[in-house]
Amino acid sequence: MSGTVSPLAPKSYPSMPVIDGVRMATAAAGIKYKNRTDVLMMVFDRPASVAGVFTRSKCPSAPVDFCRSNLPHGVARAVVVNSGNANAFTGAKGRAATELTAKSASEAVGCAENEVYLASTGVIGEPLDATKFSGVLGTMAKEGTGDFWLEAAKAIMTTDTYPKVATRSAEIDGVRVTINGIAKGAGMIAPDMATMLSFVVTDAAIAPEALQAALSAGVGPTFNAVTVDSDTSTSDTLMLFATGAAEARGQKPVLAADDQRLAGFRAALNDLLKDLALQVVRDGEGARKMVEVTVTGAENDAAAKRIALSIANSPLVKTAVAGEDANWGRIVMAVGKSGEMADRDRLAIWFGDVRVAVDGARDPGYSEAAATAVMQQEDIPVRVDLGLGDGRATVWTCDLTKEYVAINGDYRS
Amino acid sequence: MSGTVSPLAPKSYPSMPVIDGVRMATAAAGIKYKNRTDVLMMVFDRPASVAGVFTRSKCPSAPVDFCRSNLPHGVARAVVVNSGNANAFTGAKGRAATELTAKSASEAVGCAENEVYLASTGVIGEPLDATKFSGVLGTMAKEGTGDFWLEAAKAIMTTDTYPKVATRSAEIDGVRVTINGIAKGAGMIAPDMATMLSFVVTDAAIAPEALQAALSAGVGPTFNAVTVDSDTSTSDTLMLFATGAAEARGQKPVLAADDQRLAGFRAALNDLLKDLALQVVRDGEGARKMVEVTVTGAENDAAAKRIALSIANSPLVKTAVAGEDANWGRIVMAVGKSGEMADRDRLAIWFGDVRVAVDGARDPGYSEAAATAVMQQEDIPVRVDLGLGDGRATVWTCDLTKEYVAINGDYRS
Repeated sequence: MSGTVSPLAPKSYPSMPVIDGVRMATAAAGIKYKNRTDVLMMVFDRPASVAGVFTRSKCPSAPVDFCRSNLPHGVARAVVVNSGNANAFTGAKGRAATELTAKSASEAVGCAENEVYLASTGVIGEPLDATKFSGVLGTMAKEGTGDFWLEAAKAIMTTDTYPKVATRSAEIDGVRVTINGIAKGAGMIAPDMATMLSFVVTDAAIAPEALQAALSAGVGPTFNAVTVDSDTSTSDTLMLFATGAAEARGQKPVLAADDQRLAGFRAALNDLLKDLALQVVRDGEGARKMVEVTVTGAENDAAAKRIALSIANSPLVKTAVAGEDANWGRIVMAVGKSGEMADRDRLAIWFGDVRVAVDGARDPGYSEAAATAVMQQEDIPVRVDLGLGDGRATVWTCDLTKEYVAINGDYRS
Repeated sequence: MSGTVSPLAPKSYPSMPVIDGVRMATAAAGIKYKNRTDVLMMVFDRPASVAGVFTRSKCPSAPVDFCRSNLPHGVARAVVVNSGNANAFTGAKGRAATELTAKSASEAVGCAENEVYLASTGVIGEPLDATKFSGVLGTMAKEGTGDFWLEAAKAIMTTDTYPKVATRSAEIDGVRVTINGIAKGAGMIAPDMATMLSFVVTDAAIAPEALQAALSAGVGPTFNAVTVDSDTSTSDTLMLFATGAAEARGQKPVLAADDQRLAGFRAALNDLLKDLALQVVRDGEGARKMVEVTVTGAENDAAAKRIALSIANSPLVKTAVAGEDANWGRIVMAVGKSGEMADRDRLAIWFGDVRVAVDGARDPGYSEAAATAVMQQEDIPVRVDLGLGDGRATVWTCDLTKEYVAINGDYRS
């Protein structure tokens, strides 16, 4: 946790409603530091449906491997998350640690080990002493409470400067269902599947297959459209749990992925995922500004997204934003290096509503003062039109500041 | 030009021999600043063979377009290089500026306009006032001298903290030939074709086709294996000129690309290109350390290079190097995100001679002190073995420091 809170932090937190069927508890297990909350446990007293998306890293953490292997079973009873150690690149010891943690959790909750989900965040390559969980999970499972979302979000923070929570509601069969989510960043954030750790719970009754379809569809324009530093974590995990408690209030379970009754739920879920994803960007390590990059007129949507990410990941673009410098030439550079089709002489670029370039050259009416005024905002919209087709994408990033370098030049020690 | 010289600067400059057939002059044309040397002119009194490699950017600068269109002619009489303005993304005005500059140079030297080569470096998107060249090129063409390499290198600097020169010699037909080169960086440096600006001249007699083959082959493991910030410039230009003056000393012209007599020349050229490329990295914006990343045991050489670049471009790896932090977990992360085949459980990692990870976990004999000692060096060798095949590549980069952010947050103003 950094000493100063990001200037882009939310001005207030939403009041997080209780979601029937999930209880949470946190503890200080001494994973890395003494007397610091570093474990979160979620307990589903009745089996919950589960869906998940994970890092595309070829070197995933042991917990990611563990979750992936449990997912086909489709049922969750417990989630154990720790900060301070990622249990990644820990070899046989890492696998043993996940097994021991799952065993401890299954005994604490009274469930099968393949109904346990695990996530770890922190340093890569340090063996994780899973015996530290054994002493705390029993008590946590017993004492967990439903009104604990903000504390849960705090427990999983690493270099985050504020906890990330969001809540939405939707109707299925005329029954109001709630979706709550928490997330943590704040570096090693790049879209290549779900980014960082995030856990979302709903009381809706939705079968695993339908839940997975909703999550997989929702992640593209949200968590997979944000980047802090282009570095994809070994541990990225986004999970969605459905307790089914709404069934008692009359919601008939949704079984099929294409069930039209899910439309409202999907929209609310996507909105919540975007909320959480943007909170992650706004708390990017050292971030002082958020940049929304929209690319239009590309050959297709995939090309638009690659160009948008080329801009959003460019150190030169991000340092210019940090310096409030309307250096649109670096946007041209980033478009050019993306490898995607671009016609220099059709390119147009806007900062906010200020068009700075058109037809492959500086806008004839270019005003440095107007462009600079946009750069001085906290939120900076950048738009690039390629004039080639209908492809379109929006991604979000933050600026690259000296604080990012300071945070990451001395993180492990 | 930054106030402080990079700590990685060469301790001394080589004495640069004169190369018969080329003369150089510099001038202060007031492109961006007053009273600052900002133009370099090279003159070949007899037609020289020419070869070139350029940026792969889809938004190349006007001078890059201009050089590319002249290259098939194969003959050079003049080169005009300016700093302070890249003449990139300048539309029709940019093309007009290259044409006017070529016309001024052709009149000054007495050659055709397609025997003129141009390069510009500096801000993107600002119209370049080419009339400023008209007044100086005539005098430069007249007063140019052969003993002027260091001054030439100084004239093309932008954020460079030291001039970059190198010289080598080789034998063709038992005749000693010389190769001299200059280069400039120091940001927006990433390998995707020749990087930044570099001009190399030899007195050997080599036809354009053979010269181009030698240059294209040499650029892969040298200029295309260095990265400062993953940002590919719109203006990257590397040109090689052969004056043919050695013919008077008995060297028979080399016509074919596969002529075995070129072996020694190619080796000397590659060595010189590597020397210049490493000088560019060692002067990367804000650089305090150089990192040599070697990947072995990859599926093939191309995969090895992509993994090596994924490591070398990772902001988290580069900030860890800046902080002298032996954070090898970030190497694992960068291998994992590269998209290339990797088997976590076969991975081994070295910092210098210190093996820090093996078989997918921390080395049993890991010594933090030994690893940290390597990180405290100026030059840090990192090796990753994937244990999959024979693929191998080496790339070079520098650390990412607060100074990089400072330089680039406020470059344009």
